[in-house]
Amino acid sequence: MSIRFEVTARDGAARRGRLVTAHDDIETPVFMPCGTAGTVKAMTPEGVAATGARVVLGNTYHLMLRPGAERIATLGGLHRFMNWPHSILTDSGGFQVMSLAARRTIAERGVTFRSHLDGSLHELTPERSVAIQQLLGSDITMALDECTPFPSPYEAVESSMELTSRWAERSRRAFADRPGHGIFGIVQGGVHPDLRRRSAERMIDIGFDGYAVGGLAIGEGQATMFTVLDATVPLLPEDRPRYLMGVGKPADLVGAVLRGIDMFDCVLPTRSGRTAQAFTRRGTVNLRNARHADDPAPLDPDCGCPACTGYSRAYLHHLSRAGEILGSMLLTTHNLQYYADLMVEMRAAIERGTLAAFGAAFAEAA
Amino acid sequence: MSIRFEVTARDGAARRGRLVTAHDDIETPVFMPCGTAGTVKAMTPEGVAATGARVVLGNTYHLMLRPGAERIATLGGLHRFMNWPHSILTDSGGFQVMSLAARRTIAERGVTFRSHLDGSLHELTPERSVAIQQLLGSDITMALDECTPFPSPYEAVESSMELTSRWAERSRRAFADRPGHGIFGIVQGGVHPDLRRRSAERMIDIGFDGYAVGGLAIGEGQATMFTVLDATVPLLPEDRPRYLMGVGKPADLVGAVLRGIDMFDCVLPTRSGRTAQAFTRRGTVNLRNARHADDPAPLDPDCGCPACTGYSRAYLHHLSRAGEILGSMLLTTHNLQYYADLMVEMRAAIERGTLAAFGAAFAEAA
Repeated sequence: MSIRFEVTARDGAARRGRLVTAHDDIETPVFMPCGTAGTVKAMTPEGVAATGARVVLGNTYHLMLRPGAERIATLGGLHRFMNWPHSILTDSGGFQVMSLAARRTIAERGVTFRSHLDGSLHELTPERSVAIQQLLGSDITMALDECTPFPSPYEAVESSMELTSRWAERSRRAFADRPGHGIFGIVQGGVHPDLRRRSAERMIDIGFDGYAVGGLAIGEGQATMFTVLDATVPLLPEDRPRYLMGVGKPADLVGAVLRGIDMFDCVLPTRSGRTAQAFTRRGTVNLRNARHADDPAPLDPDCGCPACTGYSRAYLHHLSRAGEILGSMLLTTHNLQYYADLMVEMRAAIERGTLAAFGAAFAEAA
Repeated sequence: MSIRFEVTARDGAARRGRLVTAHDDIETPVFMPCGTAGTVKAMTPEGVAATGARVVLGNTYHLMLRPGAERIATLGGLHRFMNWPHSILTDSGGFQVMSLAARRTIAERGVTFRSHLDGSLHELTPERSVAIQQLLGSDITMALDECTPFPSPYEAVESSMELTSRWAERSRRAFADRPGHGIFGIVQGGVHPDLRRRSAERMIDIGFDGYAVGGLAIGEGQATMFTVLDATVPLLPEDRPRYLMGVGKPADLVGAVLRGIDMFDCVLPTRSGRTAQAFTRRGTVNLRNARHADDPAPLDPDCGCPACTGYSRAYLHHLSRAGEILGSMLLTTHNLQYYADLMVEMRAAIERGTLAAFGAAFAEAA
């Protein structure tokens, strides 16, 4: 296999593992911060790494439009471009293109769409998506998929899932194997167990370095998402990493790890950091709220991040009210630290065989 | 004296010195980054200190309105509030209030004005300005002054200068001497040498820990500013620090140091950092310019800052085009490093007795 994955401990359906790419060892279960347009917003790469992160996400859609994949390749690849020496997973561009709605047309060959930046016309095929991700120098490439909105008619989800399967086969064929680099297939099928099963079987037939579960956290609700995971995850190979795309809230992560998911990404911690929302062990805190104006206490006394060790809630409140960039910087740092620490705790719980208890205590505290 | 100042070397009119406050030793000539609303915009305090800065400016006007001086005092003072363990100089609020124009009324007692944030009515008297700065815990307090716009009629500048003198006396009286803390008077008088002389004599009569030259860099041009400095600086005590307020461009700093100025502040490096303007040894660079889009070279190959050692011009261009916060963070870091390095070089040149040659070479390169 192009990238190595080893499971080092199990606890129920949950797994403790290690993913070895060309750039780094990634301890799993792992949360991957979003480096959308070649930067984890409001963070230096050093700051991202200081939270413990060893893999970030890059967005094919954003980077192909600006500054362009060929340009990044000429400049030495995305790792060098954004000064990130650790691993990078890139998405296929499919999800963002799908959300362009009226601005795109789907055909068997691929998707044509108009850029949200300047209206220019672009085409994204499975082959082009893989080529872009290889130009970026991604450690983990994602196969191009189509994701139907929720809710959608069964027939629409079925034909979309089948298109995704055909695109997956073309993506796999277009991907040039290299040591330390891999490609993941994406299981679709909406909330329908039989479609998820067919999709999973098809992906396994094609054979990928890892398997993603796509098309969730788009409005179906946590209970339904967990039901889909209960039906889907057991179908995936034991010896390959499993990635739940675009998820999620802390409680989503805990529930999904309990169900055997190894990898996550979500804009929630970074986006929340720019809107004064902070995650803590005692729930979510809105720093813009006036009750923090005179509070000398740290945001989270149990957190060791720079925002919590150096500043009061009163100061973070002041920064958010004044619209100061440092507010976004500190709260993004904190939120990424919170997510990283949550994963550290879950990894430790799996090793000790106590993840169920951890999950129960977590649900209690939230 | 409340704060110690020692001149350790001279080179023509220029001086190499050290200012010792309650919080730090400040090597002079020094540039002080602006920490306007309790944060040097787009920077962590650690990042500011990493450029070599040991003193930042705080703005009385901004902080009195939001979050409020009493609140900061209750929270342990501005140093703790903003997590800055080094020195802080606070301005008097006078300059910002003056620029409110139609929103303020000047009387002998002080200035009443309406907040730009919510229209609320406030009064700033010499006594209140000093009280606010002491609540903030400032190492260096500035006396309240009035600054006339440029150009203004002679009589307007004269009566304003006299009001500033009376306010200076009241400010001095209101200031409670404490070891490691000092108060500076501000010489006004516009571009009129006789008014500058009368103002300087009055300030020296009152007796301050340092002397500022105010009311410059407001449209009179560099040549006129230097003429005013030529007429004013020699009147100031040799054994006290001299601070040129709100200045300026790199060439302004070089010319003013040559004329015996020890301290500077200006929003230029930080504000420019947020608008993709970078200062380099080869002139100013606009990173938004398309010619940088494919440039793998660093912004300034002679600079050791994180922006120049970690990234290409192409990446900085991409960040600025994409409106990414990291662009502001990196370019502010670079600009503050450039200003700090310029002061380091001038301090070294003064010690070697080569500042005139340094100034000539600097003018040549720009």
